[in-house]
Amino acid sequence: MEINLLSIGKISSEWIQKGLENFESRIGKYIKYSTTIIPDIRNSKALNSEQQKEEEGRAIINRLQPSDFVVIMDERGLEQTSREFASWLQRQMNTGRKRIVLIIGGPFGFSDDVYRRADCKLSLSKMTFTHEMAKLFLTEQIYRAMTILRGEPYHHD
Amino acid sequence: MEINLLSIGKISSEWIQKGLENFESRIGKYIKYSTTIIPDIRNSKALNSEQQKEEEGRAIINRLQPSDFVVIMDERGLEQTSREFASWLQRQMNTGRKRIVLIIGGPFGFSDDVYRRADCKLSLSKMTFTHEMAKLFLTEQIYRAMTILRGEPYHHD
Repeated sequence: MEINLLSIGKISSEWIQKGLENFESRIGKYIKYSTTIIPDIRNSKALNSEQQKEEEGRAIINRLQPSDFVVIMDERGLEQTSREFASWLQRQMNTGRKRIVLIIGGPFGFSDDVYRRADCKLSLSKMTFTHEMAKLFLTEQIYRAMTILRGEPYHHD
Repeated sequence: MEINLLSIGKISSEWIQKGLENFESRIGKYIKYSTTIIPDIRNSKALNSEQQKEEEGRAIINRLQPSDFVVIMDERGLEQTSREFASWLQRQMNTGRKRIVLIIGGPFGFSDDVYRRADCKLSLSKMTFTHEMAKLFLTEQIYRAMTILRGEPYHHD
Protein backbone atom coordinates (compact mmCIF):
# COMPACT_ATOMS: atom_id res chain seq x y z
CA MET A 1 0.00 0.00 0.00
CA GLU A 2 1.08 3.54 -0.69
CA ILE A 3 0.29 6.46 1.57
CA ASN A 4 -0.16 9.79 -0.18
CA LEU A 5 -0.52 13.03 1.73
CA LEU A 6 -2.35 15.63 -0.32
CA SER A 7 -2.39 19.25 0.80
CA ILE A 8 -3.01 22.69 -0.57
CA GLY A 9 -0.36 25.35 -0.93
CA LYS A 10 3.37 25.20 -0.64
CA ILE A 11 4.94 25.28 2.80
CA SER A 12 6.20 28.81 3.29
CA SER A 13 7.92 28.33 6.66
CA GLU A 14 11.40 27.01 6.18
CA TRP A 15 11.46 25.40 9.64
CA ILE A 16 8.25 23.44 8.96
CA GLN A 17 9.69 22.30 5.64
CA LYS A 18 12.76 21.03 7.51
CA GLY A 19 10.58 19.15 9.98
CA LEU A 20 8.50 17.61 7.19
CA GLU A 21 11.59 16.42 5.32
CA ASN A 22 12.90 14.89 8.52
CA PHE A 23 9.77 12.79 9.09
CA GLU A 24 9.11 12.07 5.39
CA SER A 25 12.52 10.52 4.84
CA ARG A 26 12.03 8.37 7.93
CA ILE A 27 8.55 7.20 6.84
CA GLY A 28 10.00 6.19 3.47
CA LYS A 29 11.94 3.44 5.20
CA TYR A 30 8.72 1.73 6.29
CA ILE A 31 6.23 2.23 3.50
CA LYS A 32 5.79 3.71 0.04
CA TYR A 33 5.08 7.33 0.81
CA SER A 34 4.41 10.33 -1.38
CA THR A 35 3.11 13.86 -1.04
CA THR A 36 1.05 15.94 -3.45
CA ILE A 37 0.76 19.70 -3.22
CA ILE A 38 -2.03 21.51 -5.00
CA PRO A 39 -0.90 25.05 -5.84
CA ASP A 40 -2.54 27.73 -3.79
CA ILE A 41 -5.07 29.41 -6.05
CA ARG A 42 -5.39 32.54 -3.95
CA ASN A 43 -2.31 33.99 -5.56
CA SER A 44 -3.73 34.01 -9.06
CA LYS A 45 -7.41 34.83 -8.60
CA ALA A 46 -9.60 37.02 -6.44
CA LEU A 47 -12.11 34.56 -4.99
CA ASN A 48 -14.37 34.60 -1.99
CA SER A 49 -14.03 31.80 0.55
CA GLU A 50 -16.84 29.73 -1.01
CA GLN A 51 -15.35 29.97 -4.51
CA GLN A 52 -11.88 29.13 -3.21
CA LYS A 53 -13.25 26.03 -1.47
CA GLU A 54 -14.99 24.92 -4.69
CA GLU A 55 -11.88 25.44 -6.83
CA GLU A 56 -9.72 23.61 -4.32
CA GLY A 57 -12.30 20.84 -4.27
CA ARG A 58 -12.13 20.40 -8.05
CA ALA A 59 -8.33 20.33 -7.93
CA ILE A 60 -8.42 17.69 -5.18
CA ILE A 61 -10.90 15.45 -7.03
CA ASN A 62 -8.75 15.70 -10.19
CA ARG A 63 -5.79 14.18 -8.36
CA LEU A 64 -7.70 11.14 -7.12
CA GLN A 65 -7.85 7.70 -8.70
CA PRO A 66 -11.14 5.76 -8.54
CA SER A 67 -9.44 3.05 -6.48
CA ASP A 68 -8.05 5.48 -3.89
CA PHE A 69 -9.20 5.19 -0.30
CA VAL A 70 -9.81 8.85 0.46
CA VAL A 71 -9.44 10.16 4.00
CA ILE A 72 -10.11 13.79 4.82
CA MET A 73 -8.72 15.42 7.93
CA ASP A 74 -11.74 17.17 9.39
CA GLU A 75 -12.40 18.52 12.85
CA ARG A 76 -15.69 16.60 12.90
CA GLY A 77 -13.89 13.37 12.01
CA LEU A 78 -13.04 10.41 14.20
CA GLU A 79 -10.45 11.21 16.85
CA GLN A 80 -8.01 8.42 17.57
CA THR A 81 -5.09 7.93 19.89
CA SER A 82 -1.72 7.40 18.17
CA ARG A 83 -2.02 3.67 18.85
CA GLU A 84 -5.55 3.54 17.41
CA PHE A 85 -4.38 5.42 14.33
CA ALA A 86 -1.56 2.87 13.89
CA SER A 87 -4.05 -0.03 14.11
CA TRP A 88 -6.35 1.78 11.70
CA LEU A 89 -3.50 2.13 9.17
CA GLN A 90 -2.68 -1.55 9.63
CA ARG A 91 -6.28 -2.49 8.86
CA GLN A 92 -6.21 -0.45 5.66
CA MET A 93 -3.01 -2.24 4.63
CA ASN A 94 -4.56 -5.61 5.40
CA THR A 95 -7.52 -5.03 3.11
CA GLY A 96 -5.16 -4.76 0.15
CA ARG A 97 -5.81 -1.17 -0.74
CA LYS A 98 -3.52 0.19 -3.41
CA ARG A 99 -3.30 3.74 -2.18
CA ILE A 100 -4.66 5.69 0.73
CA VAL A 101 -4.84 9.45 0.26
CA LEU A 102 -4.89 11.60 3.39
CA ILE A 103 -6.09 15.10 2.58
CA ILE A 104 -5.49 18.31 4.51
CA GLY A 105 -7.88 21.00 3.31
CA GLY A 106 -7.43 24.69 2.74
CA PRO A 107 -8.31 27.41 5.26
CA PHE A 108 -12.04 27.24 4.50
CA GLY A 109 -12.45 23.47 4.63
CA PHE A 110 -13.65 21.06 1.97
CA SER A 111 -16.26 21.48 -0.76
CA ASP A 112 -19.36 19.27 -0.78
CA ASP A 113 -17.87 17.25 -3.68
CA VAL A 114 -14.85 16.35 -1.57
CA TYR A 115 -17.08 15.36 1.34
CA ARG A 116 -19.04 13.10 -1.02
CA ARG A 117 -15.87 11.48 -2.41
CA ALA A 118 -14.33 10.88 1.05
CA ASP A 119 -14.36 7.33 2.37
CA CYS A 120 -13.48 8.37 5.88
CA LYS A 121 -13.06 11.42 8.10
CA LEU A 122 -10.34 11.62 10.73
CA SER A 123 -9.56 14.37 13.21
CA LEU A 124 -6.16 15.21 14.70
CA SER A 125 -7.54 17.38 17.46
CA LYS A 126 -10.49 19.58 18.34
CA MET A 127 -8.08 22.47 17.96
CA THR A 128 -7.53 24.30 14.68
CA PHE A 129 -4.09 24.59 13.05
CA THR A 130 -2.69 26.27 10.00
CA HIS A 131 -2.52 23.79 7.13
CA GLU A 132 1.28 23.81 7.54
CA MET A 133 1.08 22.78 11.18
CA ALA A 134 -1.59 20.17 10.40
CA LYS A 135 0.68 18.64 7.78
CA LEU A 136 3.60 18.53 10.18
CA PHE A 137 1.41 17.07 12.89
CA LEU A 138 -0.05 14.37 10.62
CA THR A 139 3.32 13.48 9.11
CA GLU A 140 4.76 12.92 12.58
CA GLN A 141 1.77 10.72 13.46
CA ILE A 142 2.29 8.60 10.33
CA TYR A 143 5.93 8.13 11.30
CA ARG A 144 4.87 7.36 14.88
CA ALA A 145 2.32 4.82 13.61
CA MET A 146 5.03 3.03 11.63
CA THR A 147 7.24 2.73 14.72
CA ILE A 148 4.27 1.49 16.77
CA LEU A 149 3.47 -1.20 14.19
CA ARG A 150 7.11 -2.33 14.21
CA GLY A 151 7.33 -2.25 17.99
CA GLU A 152 10.12 0.32 17.90
CA PRO A 153 10.84 2.51 20.95
CA TYR A 154 9.82 5.92 19.58
CA HIS A 155 6.34 5.87 21.14
CA HIS A 156 5.57 5.82 24.89
CA ASP A 157 2.02 5.33 26.09
CA MET B 1 -1.27 38.05 33.94
CA GLU B 2 1.85 36.24 32.87
CA ILE B 3 1.82 32.97 30.97
CA ASN B 4 4.73 30.65 31.67
CA LEU B 5 5.32 27.50 29.66
CA LEU B 6 7.31 24.97 31.66
CA SER B 7 8.80 21.95 29.93
CA ILE B 8 11.47 19.35 30.44
CA GLY B 9 14.61 19.05 28.37
CA LYS B 10 16.14 21.39 25.85
CA ILE B 11 14.80 21.37 22.30
CA SER B 12 17.24 19.37 20.25
CA SER B 13 15.67 19.90 16.80
CA GLU B 14 16.86 23.15 15.33
CA TRP B 15 13.75 23.49 13.16
CA ILE B 16 11.41 23.17 16.17
CA GLN B 17 13.49 25.77 18.01
CA LYS B 18 13.02 28.12 15.04
CA GLY B 19 9.27 27.55 15.07
CA LEU B 20 9.07 28.16 18.80
CA GLU B 21 11.03 31.41 18.56
CA ASN B 22 8.73 32.54 15.78
CA PHE B 23 5.55 32.06 17.86
CA GLU B 24 7.12 33.15 21.17
CA SER B 25 8.18 36.52 19.84
CA ARG B 26 4.69 37.03 18.43
CA ILE B 27 2.97 36.08 21.72
CA GLY B 28 5.18 38.59 23.55
CA LYS B 29 3.36 41.40 21.76
CA TYR B 30 0.06 40.42 23.39
CA ILE B 31 0.91 39.25 26.90
CA LYS B 32 3.77 38.78 29.34
CA TYR B 33 5.14 35.42 28.29
CA SER B 34 8.03 33.34 29.56
CA THR B 35 9.33 29.80 29.21
CA THR B 36 11.10 27.62 31.75
CA ILE B 37 13.11 24.57 30.79
CA ILE B 38 14.00 21.98 33.39
CA PRO B 39 17.24 20.25 32.40
CA ASP B 40 16.80 16.69 31.23
CA ILE B 41 17.99 14.47 34.06
CA ARG B 42 18.44 11.38 31.91
CA ASN B 43 21.84 12.62 30.82
CA SER B 44 23.36 12.66 34.29
CA LYS B 45 21.78 9.68 36.05
CA ALA B 46 20.70 6.14 35.28
CA LEU B 47 17.07 6.07 36.39
CA ASN B 48 14.12 3.88 35.58
CA SER B 49 10.98 5.53 34.22
CA GLU B 50 9.33 5.78 37.64
CA GLN B 51 12.38 7.40 39.22
CA GLN B 52 12.73 9.80 36.31
CA LYS B 53 9.09 10.84 36.68
CA GLU B 54 9.59 11.44 40.41
CA GLU B 55 12.76 13.51 39.89
CA GLU B 56 11.13 15.53 37.16
CA GLY B 57 8.13 16.04 39.45
CA ARG B 58 10.32 17.44 42.23
CA ALA B 59 12.05 19.77 39.78
CA ILE B 60 8.68 20.99 38.49
CA ILE B 61 7.27 21.64 41.98
CA ASN B 62 10.44 23.57 42.90
CA ARG B 63 9.81 26.05 40.10
CA LEU B 64 6.25 26.84 41.15
CA GLN B 65 5.08 29.73 43.30
CA PRO B 66 2.19 29.15 45.74
CA SER B 67 0.07 31.70 43.86
CA ASP B 68 0.60 30.04 40.44
CA PHE B 69 -2.39 28.63 38.60
CA VAL B 70 -0.92 25.31 37.47
CA VAL B 71 -2.17 23.64 34.30
CA ILE B 72 -0.79 20.30 33.20
CA MET B 73 -1.07 19.10 29.61
CA ASP B 74 -2.39 15.59 29.99
CA GLU B 75 -4.08 13.29 27.52
CA ARG B 76 -6.86 12.72 30.05
CA GLY B 77 -7.41 16.47 30.40
CA LEU B 78 -10.17 18.64 29.01
CA GLU B 79 -10.08 18.93 25.23
CA GLN B 80 -11.06 22.31 23.89
CA THR B 81 -11.40 23.87 20.48
CA SER B 82 -9.01 26.76 19.76
CA ARG B 83 -11.84 29.20 20.42
CA GLU B 84 -12.74 27.51 23.72
CA PHE B 85 -9.09 27.61 24.76
CA ALA B 86 -8.99 31.35 23.97
CA SER B 87 -12.11 31.95 26.12
CA TRP B 88 -10.61 29.82 28.85
CA LEU B 89 -7.43 31.94 28.86
CA GLN B 90 -9.55 35.09 28.94
CA ARG B 91 -11.40 33.78 32.01
CA GLN B 92 -8.11 33.14 33.79
CA MET B 93 -7.00 36.69 33.01
CA ASN B 94 -10.30 38.08 34.28
CA THR B 95 -9.94 36.42 37.68
CA GLY B 96 -6.79 38.46 38.31
CA ARG B 97 -4.34 35.58 38.45
CA LYS B 98 -0.73 36.67 38.62
CA ARG B 99 0.76 33.79 36.66
CA ILE B 100 -0.53 30.76 34.87
CA VAL B 101 1.97 27.94 34.37
CA LEU B 102 1.30 25.49 31.54
CA ILE B 103 3.36 22.34 32.00
CA ILE B 104 4.40 19.80 29.37
CA GLY B 105 5.62 16.65 31.06
CA GLY B 106 8.46 14.29 30.28
CA PRO B 107 8.12 11.06 28.27
CA PHE B 108 6.68 9.12 31.21
CA GLY B 109 4.10 11.65 32.33
CA PHE B 110 3.70 13.42 35.66
CA SER B 111 4.40 12.23 39.19
CA ASP B 112 1.57 12.02 41.73
CA ASP B 113 2.88 15.17 43.42
CA VAL B 114 2.48 17.14 40.21
CA TYR B 115 -1.04 15.79 39.72
CA ARG B 116 -1.87 16.90 43.27
CA ARG B 117 -0.46 20.40 42.71
CA ALA B 118 -2.24 20.88 39.37
CA ASP B 119 -5.25 23.20 39.34
CA CYS B 120 -6.39 22.06 35.94
CA LYS B 121 -5.72 19.44 33.25
CA LEU B 122 -5.94 20.27 29.55
CA SER B 123 -5.44 18.04 26.52
CA LEU B 124 -4.21 19.10 23.09
CA SER B 125 -5.29 15.91 21.34
CA LYS B 126 -5.93 12.25 21.99
CA MET B 127 -2.75 11.63 20.02
CA THR B 128 0.69 11.46 21.62
CA PHE B 129 3.57 13.74 20.61
CA THR B 130 7.16 14.12 21.54
CA HIS B 131 7.54 16.83 24.17
CA GLU B 132 9.13 19.01 21.47
CA MET B 133 6.13 18.72 19.18
CA ALA B 134 3.74 19.25 22.10
CA LYS B 135 5.56 22.45 23.01
CA LEU B 136 5.38 23.70 19.43
CA PHE B 137 1.70 22.77 19.20
CA LEU B 138 0.80 24.50 22.48
CA THR B 139 2.84 27.60 21.69
CA GLU B 140 1.01 28.00 18.39
CA GLN B 141 -2.33 27.62 20.18
CA ILE B 142 -1.39 30.31 22.71
CA TYR B 143 -0.54 32.64 19.82
CA ARG B 144 -3.76 31.65 18.06
CA ALA B 145 -5.75 32.34 21.25
CA MET B 146 -4.28 35.84 21.47
CA THR B 147 -5.34 36.61 17.88
CA ILE B 148 -8.82 35.21 18.57
CA LEU B 149 -9.23 37.40 21.67
CA ARG B 150 -8.16 40.46 19.67
CA GLY B 151 -10.38 39.56 16.72
CA GLU B 152 -7.41 39.38 14.36
CA PRO B 153 -7.64 37.40 11.11
CA TYR B 154 -5.19 34.55 11.88
CA HIS B 155 -7.88 32.07 12.93
CA HIS B 156 -10.64 30.69 10.67
CA ASP B 157 -13.44 28.61 12.16
